[in-house]
Amino acid sequence: MGRRTVEEHASAVAALLALAPEPESVPLAAALGRACAEDVRSPVDLPLFRNSQMDGYAIRSSDLGDLPVRLPVLGVIPAGATEPAPLEHGAAIRIMTGAPVPAGADAVVPVEDTALDGDAVTIRRVRSAGEFVRERGSDVGAGDLLVAAGTVLAARHLAALAAAGVAEVRVPRRVRVAVLTTGAELIEPGETPRAGQVFDANRVALLAGCQEAGAEVVLAEKVSDDPAEFERVLLGAADAADVVLTSGGISRGDFEVVRQVVEPRGAWVGEIAMQPGGPQATAEIEGTPVVCFPGNPVSTQVSFAVFVRPLLRAAAGLAPVAALPAVLTEPVEPPAGKRQFRRGRLDENGHVHLVAGPGSHLVASMAAADVLVEVAGPRAAGDTVAVIPL
Amino acid sequence: MGRRTVEEHASAVAALLALAPEPESVPLAAALGRACAEDVRSPVDLPLFRNSQMDGYAIRSSDLGDLPVRLPVLGVIPAGATEPAPLEHGAAIRIMTGAPVPAGADAVVPVEDTALDGDAVTIRRVRSAGEFVRERGSDVGAGDLLVAAGTVLAARHLAALAAAGVAEVRVPRRVRVAVLTTGAELIEPGETPRAGQVFDANRVALLAGCQEAGAEVVLAEKVSDDPAEFERVLLGAADAADVVLTSGGISRGDFEVVRQVVEPRGAWVGEIAMQPGGPQATAEIEGTPVVCFPGNPVSTQVSFAVFVRPLLRAAAGLAPVAALPAVLTEPVEPPAGKRQFRRGRLDENGHVHLVAGPGSHLVASMAAADVLVEVAGPRAAGDTVAVIPL
Repeated sequence: MGRRTVEEHASAVAALLALAPEPESVPLAAALGRACAEDVRSPVDLPLFRNSQMDGYAIRSSDLGDLPVRLPVLGVIPAGATEPAPLEHGAAIRIMTGAPVPAGADAVVPVEDTALDGDAVTIRRVRSAGEFVRERGSDVGAGDLLVAAGTVLAARHLAALAAAGVAEVRVPRRVRVAVLTTGAELIEPGETPRAGQVFDANRVALLAGCQEAGAEVVLAEKVSDDPAEFERVLLGAADAADVVLTSGGISRGDFEVVRQVVEPRGAWVGEIAMQPGGPQATAEIEGTPVVCFPGNPVSTQVSFAVFVRPLLRAAAGLAPVAALPAVLTEPVEPPAGKRQFRRGRLDENGHVHLVAGPGSHLVASMAAADVLVEVAGPRAAGDTVAVIPL
Repeated sequence: MGRRTVEEHASAVAALLALAPEPESVPLAAALGRACAEDVRSPVDLPLFRNSQMDGYAIRSSDLGDLPVRLPVLGVIPAGATEPAPLEHGAAIRIMTGAPVPAGADAVVPVEDTALDGDAVTIRRVRSAGEFVRERGSDVGAGDLLVAAGTVLAARHLAALAAAGVAEVRVPRRVRVAVLTTGAELIEPGETPRAGQVFDANRVALLAGCQEAGAEVVLAEKVSDDPAEFERVLLGAADAADVVLTSGGISRGDFEVVRQVVEPRGAWVGEIAMQPGGPQATAEIEGTPVVCFPGNPVSTQVSFAVFVRPLLRAAAGLAPVAALPAVLTEPVEPPAGKRQFRRGRLDENGHVHLVAGPGSHLVASMAAADVLVEVAGPRAAGDTVAVIPL
């Protein structure tokens, strides 16, 4: 039975998973919330061409002496028009917002500063030359950075990419995770428990936890406690996924299906100096990393948050969930030699209030917490500790 | 041509949309990130039954006098066992973590504090009576609040619901939005622009913006500038969606397809005292609310953030995006009588730095911003203004 500190196990899990998914190209409409894998430079100048900011009249400012001035109107340039002919001297042309400003014109006079009279327009006012002309490249130039690598793509980033004609963006391929929960006592929520049975909370906890961390869950199953059946499902999961997570069946009891299957296949099985979450294992099955959590639902969630969530987030290009300092409002005394992860609520003053006790079965209470409180030894009320947002 | 202040238009849009989606039940695995529509009380005690916290031996503490004590072992209770027989006096029974503690037993001695010798176990140490027994209901009692209405469901909430046997949760039905973008000059990203054409940034901006706000986009199309064709698509969108959003075609130009179609159908079409985003409209088409934004991409995004995003978030049960105070680092002078929404970056000291100019075509620059800076009149550097996170 191996023994590891939290740091040792975290390093071992990180080395085992070694997640570095290749980028993939996805259409903009599928990229919301994903991280940009590389800098995207604009392939074009934006605006693409010199265009009008207003509905009005394109003119040459040199044609305007003392106002008002009356100019013949030679036509109209709608938005979407192809390259218009150059503007003749001493004339105006009606122009719509976004339409290309013809060569020769250097200003647009908004329609409200004009009066149309037959085929001629009277210009009553010019605000400032060029003010209503959007120059080509005045937003961004071809080759300029449009969206930086690592940006988590929100609507405004996708809009900027679209505006520059970029239809697809490269993002890290989602890590594929398989979730296998074990325990002869487990039944599905919605079923009716017989005596001794409990509802499986770990399948949805790990499923949702992986999704929150930017991964894709390709398989999430409650598996039989029959070793041959578990092995069959595990091999299928290893084939389908980049990472397999299991819960339960890994401690020192008499009926430990995960341990029975992974130990003969060279797994590290041991005890982590933490509470909850003591018994854990890591294995490589058919080349796929397998991380085995204990079955108590709080143990599973805490182990996931401490060992796997940071790796999945990093692989997805998402920022780490930073631990914060917080002031304890009551003393905490972890078991000797163990790192304890209690559940707590952080208030706006940076004080953390423990939620329920240390028991790893307190899964309902955990829903009321918003941080894990990491305590490496006896701490008094008023001490500062690290808390990890959930 | 009507005129409205920002507040008047916001009120008009809120009254028109009047979003109050009925809750729907969804399986836990589909509920991540959605808001709980109502308080969920636990239908059961958790734990469901008194069970063992450790692998060890269930005993009666009254059977232990001076330690060590040797007790016959009468069998084993695995996890998942049905109700075990009461524990006889003067005996122990091997018990696995999570297994039901038999009547009569009031403590579990962890296996590491014992020694098994044939059919009897020697108890070497008792830590504290009851410590390794999880009492029924010690996590949550039947009828107790499990997840409060309004909670945005994260993995730990879904785990708590699952643990209590709750298989589905009620969340507000997603508001169905149709997005129609117009403009004869628009082409899709990925296409090759001819002179005068521009890439449509609004379709993906509104699509992603609605998704970020918890809505479902049932239709997102770039529509022809032909009024008959636009009307046909608009009627289909009104039929398929709870809300239709349009961009473009609503101002005072000669070719304004949205305006041509909605005005004869009783739309309010007018000018909002804001920049960007002046020309806007609201309509009710076949009973479905339609909100019409101007076509400049920054105008569309700002109008969405100011008028529609708050309503979609509220309908989805998501918290409002709160405006924050921030200190201007340079003066801002909006056009007379208009509320200006500039783009800015907020730093960690609460100072906001403007990003690019006020132009509504600066869509690439907007990607570099993280707030809208709301300015109701001339402001100097050092003045405090409201900023709206993007």
